[in-house]
Amino acid sequence: MAPFYVPTSLDERVLRPETLSPNIIKAEYGVRGEIYLEAQKMVNAGKEVVFMNVGNPHALGQKALTFPRQVMALCQAPFLLDDPNVGKLFPRDAIARARQLLKMTGIGGVGAYSDSRGVPGVRQEVARFIEHRDGFPSDPEHIYLTDGASPAVKLALQLLIRGEHDGILVPIPQYPLYSATVQMLGGSLVPYLLDEKKGWGMNIDLLKESVLSARRKGIMVRGLVVINPGNPTGQCLERGDLEDIIKFCIKERVALLADEVYQVNVYQSKHPFVSFKKVLCEMGAPYSRSLELFSFHTVSKGFTGECGQRGGYVEFTNIHPEVLEQCYKIVSVSLSPNVTGQLMVGMMCNPPQPGDPSYKQYAAESKEVLESLGRKARALSEGFNKFKNMQCNEVEGALYAFAKLQLPPGAIAAAKKAGKAPDAFYCLELLKATGMSATPGSGFGQEDGTFHFRTTILPEEDIVPGLLKKVERFNDEFMTKYSTMQSRM
Amino acid sequence: MAPFYVPTSLDERVLRPETLSPNIIKAEYGVRGEIYLEAQKMVNAGKEVVFMNVGNPHALGQKALTFPRQVMALCQAPFLLDDPNVGKLFPRDAIARARQLLKMTGIGGVGAYSDSRGVPGVRQEVARFIEHRDGFPSDPEHIYLTDGASPAVKLALQLLIRGEHDGILVPIPQYPLYSATVQMLGGSLVPYLLDEKKGWGMNIDLLKESVLSARRKGIMVRGLVVINPGNPTGQCLERGDLEDIIKFCIKERVALLADEVYQVNVYQSKHPFVSFKKVLCEMGAPYSRSLELFSFHTVSKGFTGECGQRGGYVEFTNIHPEVLEQCYKIVSVSLSPNVTGQLMVGMMCNPPQPGDPSYKQYAAESKEVLESLGRKARALSEGFNKFKNMQCNEVEGALYAFAKLQLPPGAIAAAKKAGKAPDAFYCLELLKATGMSATPGSGFGQEDGTFHFRTTILPEEDIVPGLLKKVERFNDEFMTKYSTMQSRM
Repeated sequence: MAPFYVPTSLDERVLRPETLSPNIIKAEYGVRGEIYLEAQKMVNAGKEVVFMNVGNPHALGQKALTFPRQVMALCQAPFLLDDPNVGKLFPRDAIARARQLLKMTGIGGVGAYSDSRGVPGVRQEVARFIEHRDGFPSDPEHIYLTDGASPAVKLALQLLIRGEHDGILVPIPQYPLYSATVQMLGGSLVPYLLDEKKGWGMNIDLLKESVLSARRKGIMVRGLVVINPGNPTGQCLERGDLEDIIKFCIKERVALLADEVYQVNVYQSKHPFVSFKKVLCEMGAPYSRSLELFSFHTVSKGFTGECGQRGGYVEFTNIHPEVLEQCYKIVSVSLSPNVTGQLMVGMMCNPPQPGDPSYKQYAAESKEVLESLGRKARALSEGFNKFKNMQCNEVEGALYAFAKLQLPPGAIAAAKKAGKAPDAFYCLELLKATGMSATPGSGFGQEDGTFHFRTTILPEEDIVPGLLKKVERFNDEFMTKYSTMQSRM
Repeated sequence: MAPFYVPTSLDERVLRPETLSPNIIKAEYGVRGEIYLEAQKMVNAGKEVVFMNVGNPHALGQKALTFPRQVMALCQAPFLLDDPNVGKLFPRDAIARARQLLKMTGIGGVGAYSDSRGVPGVRQEVARFIEHRDGFPSDPEHIYLTDGASPAVKLALQLLIRGEHDGILVPIPQYPLYSATVQMLGGSLVPYLLDEKKGWGMNIDLLKESVLSARRKGIMVRGLVVINPGNPTGQCLERGDLEDIIKFCIKERVALLADEVYQVNVYQSKHPFVSFKKVLCEMGAPYSRSLELFSFHTVSKGFTGECGQRGGYVEFTNIHPEVLEQCYKIVSVSLSPNVTGQLMVGMMCNPPQPGDPSYKQYAAESKEVLESLGRKARALSEGFNKFKNMQCNEVEGALYAFAKLQLPPGAIAAAKKAGKAPDAFYCLELLKATGMSATPGSGFGQEDGTFHFRTTILPEEDIVPGLLKKVERFNDEFMTKYSTMQSRM
């Protein structure tokens, strides 16, 4: 080949920031943004950091439930089932469950691609779980297993978004998976505010306003995201809210994305979790045959907290059969979700029953996880409420405390000088002073002029009091420093 | 809320085929298309089917290697490491490796999200593997672990495609992951023909023609996909081809996607596998500092065949640092690839060494898998070459035989009548008559007027002769039937 000019400088690259899709550049994902990267640096520098920015329970010491892990071990190494010593390490029901799951996967076990929608036997276990939870039928053919809930959410949004004129209603504050995915798909975010004064409750009138203002901009609203229990806000919606939301969606011709991954993480009794599917079925015809509903669940949260296993599912309700066929095609391109994650979903939906050798331990382990989470939820929200210029709604559910900051003008000015959002500035200082890695409210969106931060409720219980003391000391100094600065201005 | 009209009929749905993005409808994925669905129906009807449509080794009886599975079992159930009986079920080095991997993952083990790019320690193992393979440095910071290779391919294409005016050069025939993903991302496919007469070799002149004709249509070609060893075509490229391809990419300002997932699946010695990265490094400056290269690998193929574990990686070479930052952001939205799949990648890259207790067994197991694949590759291609109107190039590598069909006009007419592509028609008849589920060439793309089918070389060795006999009988009858029909026309 004849010699030719060979470009080697960066600005001659095919791929440069300015040659990427603006949708990529536009997308924001604060949960693993600047604060997280700074925290990583501190860890590499040998400093101690408590990562409270991501709901990653095992990373903060939560133990895996024993039974599912015993079964997974046997599914990974099925030859152990024929070992005369297997009974010395594994209980009878774990061995039986492993045999049963390996029958479901067929000869390939966890080493073979499953059907792209997931192992049929596991999809049946999920359907039975939903039927038992809601008291209404669930069809395994309308359940897809996925690598955690995130790909399921992306799948639903991919169906709803054709371009910038398609809008998705997303709560403010929200879990940034939604904003980032909508942006990457080139759609339009249509934010609606949750009402902090009403414990982060839904306000249907605010929803309607958002839809109208979007339509005035020529945006067709096609989907509504509801996270219940709330992330980052921790509220549990009341049954009446769910009915109003369902009616709103049907009336406005909007599909509903029900993020119910925290359905087990409920720490009070006045607002128990109830699924959208259940309320929809109880509302009966014609509603029950109308709402296009995507419901998401996962093994990453609850009391399993198995984030690294990447197991989740979506249940489709009232989705057009030909659209489901398109879904099947889309997931086929990725061949299959990871099989071990699928089996974890199956065990979450079909745990040991009373009388099984592992039942007592399973029940005790899961009870302890949930009770400890409840205690930590209270400790953190009550703690934060005692601190200067800080207010935190009750953590009714999910894995997060979302605290409001009354930042003095001096702090806001200092943040501006540093080129940071005021609450990002606060979280960065907080991280440096206490080693606590929180996420600023600006990473989730918040009402203009308000500032927040989110922390998980996951650190081990015995370190929580010390952590709170550190935060209180830092917060006092921070607020005092910038108030006095302010008064000196 | 006041009563209102509740739409319940399908054609009032928000989501209908006609309200989805045309990019979704357009996307095609033949590997799990009509034939696969028909095969599923036959299985459900109790008929026997040999699934030779997908490269899914364990599903056809290939055994998992023992060592990695022992280690995975211990990583799933780390409490076994403290059990006095653990030595009765697990060898010393599996126990040691499990401890080492769990040190890499940190306290969360396989139950916690890892860094979104993958566990740092595993990324180092991958880098050392590449350095050992190529004899040139590899930087763990430029390696991302993914849920199999597919998401890594999607990531690269997402960077390259902004819209319909961005084109990706894709071989014909090709693995439809590429066509489907390019279509879903709304980009333009720019096909280039592989030369069947030259054993499916690359022809740089054909590449250039494709680029020119694309540019005439106003399409900016930004990426080139090369699959080596080839899927579905099974050829192994010569070193000279790789140099020409690299020079072509640099000259034409095109990034290279090197699909090298079959790098271990090579069944002859005249065309050994050599990586694009190695050739690029050996070409030296300025080339080595210019080509923007994405290299993909996975645990799904090779002799591990661990498709269900979903473990893979991409190595970035000469990718703009700010583009890498965007990659980090994109993968962060999905939080983390499944951790067990990551650890499988680590063990693939860092297997037992001579002297380790498990070395002999690991070496014997992997040798047997590869040798058996080689024998089956020869048996199938030689068999197909003996059949009427059938011709099959040597399977030099990968997991597939891709046979050419000389279909009589009568068959083409019958297919047309049935509304099917002629080779899809053939594969459907083949499936019904023999239970062999193959994939028509039309699912991969092929030169106009030619017809092919792809089968994996994966069925267990002892059933291959019987399978070939069945195929021969069916093929004879099919060809005779439609030739005589034809002569009667």
